[in-house]
Amino acid sequence: MNLQNIITEYPNFPKKGILFRDISPILKNPAALSHVVDEFAKKFHTNDVDIFAGIESRGFPLACAMALRYNKGMIMIRKQGKLPGSTVKRSYNIEYGKATMEIQRNAVNKDQRVVICDDLLATGGTAKAAAELIEKLGGQVAGFAFIVELTDLQGIKKIEKYKCESLVRY
Amino acid sequence: MNLQNIITEYPNFPKKGILFRDISPILKNPAALSHVVDEFAKKFHTNDVDIFAGIESRGFPLACAMALRYNKGMIMIRKQGKLPGSTVKRSYNIEYGKATMEIQRNAVNKDQRVVICDDLLATGGTAKAAAELIEKLGGQVAGFAFIVELTDLQGIKKIEKYKCESLVRY
Repeated sequence: MNLQNIITEYPNFPKKGILFRDISPILKNPAALSHVVDEFAKKFHTNDVDIFAGIESRGFPLACAMALRYNKGMIMIRKQGKLPGSTVKRSYNIEYGKATMEIQRNAVNKDQRVVICDDLLATGGTAKAAAELIEKLGGQVAGFAFIVELTDLQGIKKIEKYKCESLVRY
Repeated sequence: MNLQNIITEYPNFPKKGILFRDISPILKNPAALSHVVDEFAKKFHTNDVDIFAGIESRGFPLACAMALRYNKGMIMIRKQGKLPGSTVKRSYNIEYGKATMEIQRNAVNKDQRVVICDDLLATGGTAKAAAELIEKLGGQVAGFAFIVELTDLQGIKKIEKYKCESLVRY
């Protein structure tokens, strides 16, 4: 199955000059969704993973799909202010200014091995912050699973110390 | 399995006077996550559903889990400004002012039967707007699946013409 034929491109979204790669058609297509999970299942052995983390919000469906396949759980890494209880936060640079991500303190246990899932790897800022949150809680980053990687932006360099898997590279 | 024992309560979140019911521990617990899907699978027959819609963003994992169980697809109903391409929008009242939700025009085909998924039914404003979006695209609302229903807020009245299923009622 060629996922590239299913991912839809939208020029100038969310702003002029950006070509948005939309994974919505994958989620809508049961065969494509299963294919994505099958492919990642070849890359991460079930004995090497304890839990899947989804980055808000397009990472949530992928993390949940992986969790179900592996019979593990999923946790949410969210934008600031959405999570109740005791949390840890990490700010990172975005194009103009800073963004902050947050995770619940009890989301990860010490030494739990976490695969972080998102739809797309761009500059890697979000991914790196997500990894730092997991580690701040004492967890281990077992790797990253991205459906799409935009290689020109070299986001991989920010997370090169981790196992990093993507299914479609542009 | 008693989901009520797994759902965590946080007083005064997101603001004073609100008791937040957090489904995160369900997602983290593989047995609880499977249980949720099993319970909804008893309520919606596979022949009566074509696709699952998740309401941003805690509805996404549930919609994805249901889609995988039924071997159907999932679509995303999002906050305004997140979706590329041609969309339809619906505003609804929240406590102070209005919020707007959006769906891609090609998300639903005419007469496709959609089960709308979210973690929690509160006042029903979001749920009603989601149903209106599906219908605006020519789809049919096959029902709602909520993990939690806050009965005091009577959100069910806003969507009483639809099949509405919840697993935990407070």
